[in-house]
Order: sequence, then C-alpha cells, then structure tokens
Amino acid sequence: LDYQHVQVPFEITLWIMLASLAKIGFHLYNKLPSVVPESCLLIFVGLIMGGIIYGLNDKSPPVMDSDIFFLYLLPPIVLDAGYFMPSRPFFENIGTILLYAVVGTIWNVFGIGFSLYGICQVKAFHLQDVSLLHNLLFGSLIAAVDPVAVLAVFEEIHVNEKLHILVFGESLLNDAVTVVLYKLFRSFCEMPTIKSADVFAGVGKFFVVGLGGVLVGLTFGMTAAFTTRFTKDIRVIEPLFVFLYSYLSYLTAEMFHLSGIVAIIACAMGMKRYVEANISLKSHTTVKYFMKMWSSVSDTLIFIFLGVSTIGENHEWNWPYICFTVIFCLIWRALGVLVLTFFVNRFHVNTITSKDQFIIAYGGLRGAICFSLVFLLPDFHRKKLFIAATTVVILFTVFVQGMTIRPLVDLLAVKRKRESAPTVGEQIHIRFLDHLLAGIEDISGHWGQYYWKDKLEYFNSKYLQKILLREYDQPKSSIVLLYEKLERKHAIELAEAGQLGRAPSHPSLLCSGFLCSNDRTVIIDKKLEDTLNPGVLENIQEILARNLYRIRRTGPAYNRHTLPGETEPVEHAKEILILRHKSL
Amino acid sequence: LDYQHVQVPFEITLWIMLASLAKIGFHLYNKLPSVVPESCLLIFVGLIMGGIIYGLNDKSPPVMDSDIFFLYLLPPIVLDAGYFMPSRPFFENIGTILLYAVVGTIWNVFGIGFSLYGICQVKAFHLQDVSLLHNLLFGSLIAAVDPVAVLAVFEEIHVNEKLHILVFGESLLNDAVTVVLYKLFRSFCEMPTIKSADVFAGVGKFFVVGLGGVLVGLTFGMTAAFTTRFTKDIRVIEPLFVFLYSYLSYLTAEMFHLSGIVAIIACAMGMKRYVEANISLKSHTTVKYFMKMWSSVSDTLIFIFLGVSTIGENHEWNWPYICFTVIFCLIWRALGVLVLTFFVNRFHVNTITSKDQFIIAYGGLRGAICFSLVFLLPDFHRKKLFIAATTVVILFTVFVQGMTIRPLVDLLAVKRKRESAPTVGEQIHIRFLDHLLAGIEDISGHWGQYYWKDKLEYFNSKYLQKILLREYDQPKSSIVLLYEKLERKHAIELAEAGQLGRAPSHPSLLCSGFLCSNDRTVIIDKKLEDTLNPGVLENIQEILARNLYRIRRTGPAYNRHTLPGETEPVEHAKEILILRHKSL
Repeated sequence: LDYQHVQVPFEITLWIMLASLAKIGFHLYNKLPSVVPESCLLIFVGLIMGGIIYGLNDKSPPVMDSDIFFLYLLPPIVLDAGYFMPSRPFFENIGTILLYAVVGTIWNVFGIGFSLYGICQVKAFHLQDVSLLHNLLFGSLIAAVDPVAVLAVFEEIHVNEKLHILVFGESLLNDAVTVVLYKLFRSFCEMPTIKSADVFAGVGKFFVVGLGGVLVGLTFGMTAAFTTRFTKDIRVIEPLFVFLYSYLSYLTAEMFHLSGIVAIIACAMGMKRYVEANISLKSHTTVKYFMKMWSSVSDTLIFIFLGVSTIGENHEWNWPYICFTVIFCLIWRALGVLVLTFFVNRFHVNTITSKDQFIIAYGGLRGAICFSLVFLLPDFHRKKLFIAATTVVILFTVFVQGMTIRPLVDLLAVKRKRESAPTVGEQIHIRFLDHLLAGIEDISGHWGQYYWKDKLEYFNSKYLQKILLREYDQPKSSIVLLYEKLERKHAIELAEAGQLGRAPSHPSLLCSGFLCSNDRTVIIDKKLEDTLNPGVLENIQEILARNLYRIRRTGPAYNRHTLPGETEPVEHAKEILILRHKSL
Repeated sequence: LDYQHVQVPFEITLWIMLASLAKIGFHLYNKLPSVVPESCLLIFVGLIMGGIIYGLNDKSPPVMDSDIFFLYLLPPIVLDAGYFMPSRPFFENIGTILLYAVVGTIWNVFGIGFSLYGICQVKAFHLQDVSLLHNLLFGSLIAAVDPVAVLAVFEEIHVNEKLHILVFGESLLNDAVTVVLYKLFRSFCEMPTIKSADVFAGVGKFFVVGLGGVLVGLTFGMTAAFTTRFTKDIRVIEPLFVFLYSYLSYLTAEMFHLSGIVAIIACAMGMKRYVEANISLKSHTTVKYFMKMWSSVSDTLIFIFLGVSTIGENHEWNWPYICFTVIFCLIWRALGVLVLTFFVNRFHVNTITSKDQFIIAYGGLRGAICFSLVFLLPDFHRKKLFIAATTVVILFTVFVQGMTIRPLVDLLAVKRKRESAPTVGEQIHIRFLDHLLAGIEDISGHWGQYYWKDKLEYFNSKYLQKILLREYDQPKSSIVLLYEKLERKHAIELAEAGQLGRAPSHPSLLCSGFLCSNDRTVIIDKKLEDTLNPGVLENIQEILARNLYRIRRTGPAYNRHTLPGETEPVEHAKEILILRHKSL
C-alpha cells in the first residue's frame, strides 16, 4: 500500500465526493430542502464530521485553510455569479448598490467597531485589553455581507429581481471596501504610531482597489473575447479560455492587492457577450454547465468546511462580547439600510418599500469570507475570542436568519420574481423605450443612464465588436440571439416529445397569452423603423412574421442548482413547433 | 506585489494558457497540421521554451515531474481514451490485443535488454559497467508503446478501425506488463541476491496487477452508475461523478500498485452505458466536451514539457549505446509483430495483412511514459545515459516515425476508416446476426465470443440494469437511443437552418442512398420478431414506420480534436425534418 504517493489528489477527490453525495442525499427527500436551506444542512454535516474527527483523534480537526478558500473555492462561485449576473437590473441599480456596498459597509465597520469598544470599557466584562484598533479590525471583517451565503439563501426564496440584485450586488462589491479596511487596520495594528497621512492614503486606496479590480477584469475579459475569435478550428478548448482568463484576472488582482472579486466579476460580465457570440453552442452549454457545477461544489465544500472548522479548541468564550457582536451586527445593519434607503428614495421614483428594506437588512448574512479573514489575523492574545465571535455570528445569520427569511417573505408578502421571462414582444418594447429615453436625455442635455448606455452601445458596435467578434460584419441583435436559442430549445423538445409519442392536441393554446400577432407587428415595426438599424429590423420582421407563438420560460433566471429550461412542459413546445412547421 | 501568495495556481494557469494558445496558433495555418503532427510541433515549442529558459537562467530548465505526469496529466487522457473506446472492435480483437500487449511487450523487454547487454560487452564502447539487470530495467521502460503518442498520431491518419484498435489497445493494456517488469527489475537491482522464488512471484504479479486493475475499475464504474440513479433532482453535479469515480479508480489502483491505466479504462467502459442512460442530455454533452478538452490540454502539456525537459545537462552522450537502442527498438518490435501475427493469422479467418503488420510495427511510438519512468529510476552512475537514450528514442519515434507514417499509409494504400457511421438498418442487421451466431454457438456447444456476449447481455438486462438504471422497467435499446440522438441533432440543425433562412429544395434526396423503406421494415421485422424482446421491437417498428430518411454522420468516430457532428450539412437535415413533420 502506497498511500503517501496519492494522498493529495485522493483526499481532494474524496472531499469533493463527500460534498456531492451530501447534496444528492438532501435532494432524495424532497421536503427537507424546502424547509431548511441547503447551507444549514451542509454546515450541520460539517459539524457532525468535525465531531467525529475530534472524537477519534482527540484533537481539533483541521480548520479551513484561508489560502485554499481564497485561491480555489471562492473564484468559481464569484465567476458563476458574475457570468450569470442579470446585467440590466444590475446597471439600473448600480448607484444604490454602490451606496450600500461602500457607504453601508464603512458605516457598519465603524458602528460595530466603536460600539464594541464601548462594551470593552465595561469593567465587569474583563475586556479592557482589547484596543480600539483591534475592535475596528474585527468590525472590518465582521461587517461584510457574504456573497456565498447570500446566494445560497436568496436563490431559494425567489424575491423580486430588484431586491435580489440589491442584496447580492452589495455582497459582491463590498469586497473592495472590506479588503481596504481590513488591510488598513491590520497594518495600523502593527505600526507604532499612525500619521494622518496614512489615513488619507487609506481613503485613496478605496478607489485604487475597486477601480483597479475593474480595470484588470475588463482587460482580461477583452483578451478572452479576442482569443475566442480564433478558436473556430479547435472547438474543444473554447470553454477553457473562459475559465483560464477569469481565473487569471482574479489571481492578477490578488497579486497586486486589488479586489479579486471585483476583477473576476468585471471580467465575466465584460467577456460574456462576445464570448457567447464567438463560441459554438456546445461549448456554451459546457461553459454554463461547468460553471454551475463548479460553483455548486465549491459552495458545498465551503459550508461543510465551515461546519468542520467550528468544532475544536480554537475558541475563547466571552459571552458578553459575543452576544453584543451579534446584536450590534443586526442593529447597525438595520440602521444603515434605513438611513441609506431614505436618501436613495428621495432621488428615485421607483422607491424601495419598507418591506424590501426589512428584507435587505435581514438578508445581510455573514459567511466564509469573514471566517477566512479572522484566521488570517496576526497572532495576538485575543484572536481566539474574535474567532469565537465570528463563528457565532456566521452560525446565527446562516441558521436563524437563513431559516426564518423564507417564512418572513411569505408573511410580509414581499413582491416575488415574475416566473416567466419577458416575451420577444416585451423585449422589443423595452428596447424601443431605451432608444426613446436615450433620445429624450440627449435632447434635454441630461447625461443619465440611458444616455451613457446608448453611447456605450455605439462604441461597442463601432469598435469593440469589430475587434472582438469573429463575424463582425453581421452582428446579431440580442433579440435575434434569444429567438435562435428558443427555436433550438423547442426543436429539441419536439424531437424528444416525438420520440415519447405523446401528442395531446390543444390548438387553443396558440391563441392564449401574449401573442406577437401580425397586426401588432406592423404597429411595432412602424415605431421601430426610425430607432433600430435596418439589419436588426429586417431580422425581427422576418422572425415575427414567421412565428406566432408565445415565448415561455418557467425556470428561474439564475439559480445555481437548476439549469434553465429543464422544467418546461414538453407537449406545448411540441405542438407549437408542429403548427409552425405546417405553416411553412 | 505579492507573487508568492498566488504563485502555484498562477503558474499552472499560465502553463495551461500557453498550451491552449499554442494549439490555436497551429490551427491558424491550416496547412501546418496536415503535414506535421501536432505532437511534433508541441515538442518543438517545448524545445524553444526550454532553450529560452536555459539561456536566461544558465541552468537546466525544470524537468517534467513524474508525479505530476502520473497523477494529473495521464489520467484525463486515459479516461478519454477509455470512455470513447469503440467497444465492439475492442472486444472482437481482445485476444490479439492482449497477445501484442503481454507477449509482445515481454518479447521487446527481453530482446532489447539482452541485445543491449551484448553491446555493453564490446570493450571499445566503454560500457562494461552496465549490468544485465540494468539493461533489462532499461528495456522494460523503453519497450512500452505510449498511448498518448499513439493517439496523437493515429487520430490524424484515420486508418481502418481494426488496425487502430490493435495499436491503440496494445499501447493501453501494456501498462500492466510495464508496471510489473519495471518494478520487478528495479527491486532486483536493489536486492543482493535473486532467488528463483522471486522470479515466480514476479510472473504471478502479472495477473494480480492486470486483473486487479480491471476489478478496481469495474467496482468504481458500477458505483458511479449506481450513484447517477439518484441525481435526477440535481442535474448540475452529474458530470462530476463521471470524473470523480474514474479518478478514484485510477488513484486506488496506483495506491495498491495495480495498473491505474487498466483500472480507469475498465471503469470508463463499464460505467459508460449506464451513466449515459441515467444522466440528462446536457450533462452528457458536458461530460463529453470536458473529457475531450481535458485530455487535449493534458496531451498538449505533456508534449510541451517533453520538449522543455529535453534541454539541459541531464544527458550522458554515449553514441553507440544510444544508436543501438534506437535500432534494437525498431528491430525487436518488427520481429515481435511478425512472429505474433503469424500465430494470430493461423487462428483467424479475417487475417492481418502484411501492410497492416508494417503499420503496427511502425506505429510503436514511445512517449512521455518512458520519459517519466526513466526519471523515477533510482540514482546510479549511468542514469544520465539512460535518460539520453530514452530522449533520443522518443524524439526519433515521434518525429521520424510520426511524420513519415502518414505518407507511408498513403503510399501503401492501407485500408482507411469508412467515413460514414452504420445506418439504423445496418445496426439492426448486425444485432440480428449477433443473436443468430449466439444461437449457433449455443447449439454447437462452442463457447465463443458470441456465446459469452449473449450471456453477458442476459446478465445485464436481468440484474445489472435493474440495479443501475433509474428507469429499469423500460430499458432502451441502443438503436432507439441512437435514433433519439439523431433526431435531436437534426432538430437543432433544422432550427438553425430555419434561422438562417436558406432553404434549397431537393426532394429527390429522400429517395437516394440507403433507405429503411416500409417494405424492408416488414421483412426485417419478421426476422427479428423471435430474437428481440417485444419492447425493443415495438420501439423499432414505430421508428421505422414513421421515419424515412438516411442516417448520415460524417465526423470521425473518436478524434479528440473535433467533436462529432460539427461538420454535417445543414440543408439536408432541415429538408428531411420538414418532410417528416409534414407527414405527421
């Protein structure tokens, strides 16, 4: 037996296997995942495993290595999040998201830091040796909302798109702030004296870290898009470039102490559009599938490791400090959301309701990022107290908040996500309105969202597409691409349905729902003729004239655990396609 | 700048990136890959890179780590080979393949070892200090034909299926023999005296290593198939199990000193059928695509590393020894093939022609396995000579033989692979003949290939399918699955063609080629009625009655660099599907 030789890959494979089998296990009993979030179940599995290891070895089980977490487990999840990020709601709410992510996080850091320092002054608690700087350092790591935990919970409760993107976007973009503040306070802790120049340099770093991350990400994203121009003869390695370039962007950003999370998101969002146009359909399926698979496994491993790491003797239990940490986390987040939303609502017509505010505040889950950061702290005599407090906050938010948020969403009747995707008709209307609003903004001299979007689109079609796309002379509109995708999906479903031999006949279906009938098409065409370029228009006319059916998509838009289009009724699709082909 | 922190993943990513970009580079010039095999180009890139590193650092560039090769680079290639192994020709020729792999390899090892020992006795060459055992040890590592090199070359020349499977199967299965002989001679080298009992134990080990590998592989394969029964609710992680279980089978076999290559091939071939039936279509695309991608990258990296490792000061140049090694490798292989084929041809009706024999002998390429084994040798004063000789043999076989084999195949007019896949009609005939021959063998009391195949099929449908398949009450025949696949492919093509708007009309196409017309169907049905079970029969009747078109597939069956079905003409498929739907 030569175990030494194969130990590393063998143990990694076994851990991944355990994670995958745990996932299968939960889904065998359909009722369990609908009550308890998967993240809780996985932490629970981790706790049991940690207990077993502790019991057998009589020493603390190994804690999750921060390097492994930041270098190998986090990137796939963030890449998945960035690649499948719904870009429209994200950019529509970018101001609000940035406000929550930057100002909100700073507010939380200083709020929690200073109030915990206040607690430390109470003599009865025996905490006078914890300095203000250490409290602020702790605040900086405990304040950040965790994208992995937020994704795991919010994917299951299906709140409306705006609410989802606000919480999720915040959890992603606050990484830049967390990185800066954490490193700043850590270096302050090691300095003998702090000059005011250091503080100003720290403030300047925000922009460097955040914008630097965006820059690194976009550079790699554009390079990835450019590379896929040349993969026509060698389709099999196309998916690889998507992964390689995004990972390189993350590593490069980390290497220069920039925000890796921001970089990988910028890379994924930047390259998606061009890569999708360049690579083959099968490559694209592989990219999507593998991203989902990888992020799903990473996220499972993170929660299991979190459970395992909790067991052991790394903790110093000082109950007042721990309890007040939990309380302050809740209070300062709630206050922050209330105050910031007040300002946000003053400048927006489409305001954030108080129900939404409650869910934003309540959805501020902490997770593995805090946990990894606390282990990265330099050794000092109260580190174990910080570890204990962080563990309790994470378990509290994931278990108590994570498990009660679904009933609360039901109870408050928070607006849910619409189940169906927009129809082609709706998409055309949205695009038409975008052009109209861009024109209005241009005339009125207001440089708003639509104005910039229009300018960016112009720059894209004039320069970027010519460089980055293989067939740049015939750029396809997103509507044409959507139609192609649906067409292909229906064709497959038809083939499968024909094979199964079931063919119920409801011709009435064709008349129900929203239909792009020929009459309406004419009206839309008239409106669009001036705003869309002739190539796109021709494509749309051709599609609408030939196809009279409603586009339906029942799968949720970005759930990591199901792939879109797996739950669709087969019979309807079949019937529609038969009718269409008869009319040809 | 914090390079230390991200060094390991960063450098791995950069190497993979380099490999992928090199691959793209070659395919930009279409003429280059058709003249020079990709493996040669990659070694050449590696040589240049090694030269640059050597020039800049003034010390030898790092050699390929044998652990990295055996643990990380080899498994994806072997998994790909095993998963896409055409099982029918493999099992039809299993006897011949095993004869070449076991007897042929032993013949080569002892032939090369003893004749090199003879050369060492010539005083003028200054090689008297190389003992017989060391020569045999060297023979055991240089004799093995390398699957990676064989695949890389044979995939590009498209010889007939039998010839391909003979060379390729031998290169895979000789691993068991190589492992045993290499370890045996290595332990003999370290022993003071060798008893005859040790030699007999070595012979017994052949069976343990080979059959043990098969057993480990099948166990993991069946477990993988069983696991995919339960993944219906969590499709995204399905592809993972295929990779995890095969890798575990490889590592487990290596751990117990069994043949990892044999294990992973048994695992892949064992699970393929059941896994494919259990997992979703998209998962299957992902599995296929990722396997191809992974093996393609591994193989690229191996050849580049091979080139890099060649540069440097690891070599001791003793020209007589090196030249005679190359000559003996060629001679003993040619002799071995001639002698073994003589015996094979005596017992077979379908003999191996002398042209085929020449290609089998000439296609015995050496590659990275020899290279890794020679670096794993225990340190002794002539190790650098062995490294030099191995390097020269590898470069000679890959460059000279690899580059001339294609012109030779053309020159000799070796029978090529048929371009089209068998039609449904042919498949039905083949199956019918299988049943018939199994019956004849049963009546005549001869326990031949068909008898065992029939028994295995019975065991499979009676027990294995019920345990391993999700919907075991309706097992689908492979013909039905093939039909489903073609139907889906055509549907997609129709959708894409409809999108493109090109619709030439050649109804005459439907009448050309091989057609399963209704009349013929009736005749086939009559014959099949007694041999096929009613469920399958019903499916086939339904298919044949409804669909009157020829099945065409132009892509080669197992090429790692192109995926099947990418080159098919779109218009024909479209037209056929339209005609069929009209008839519905």
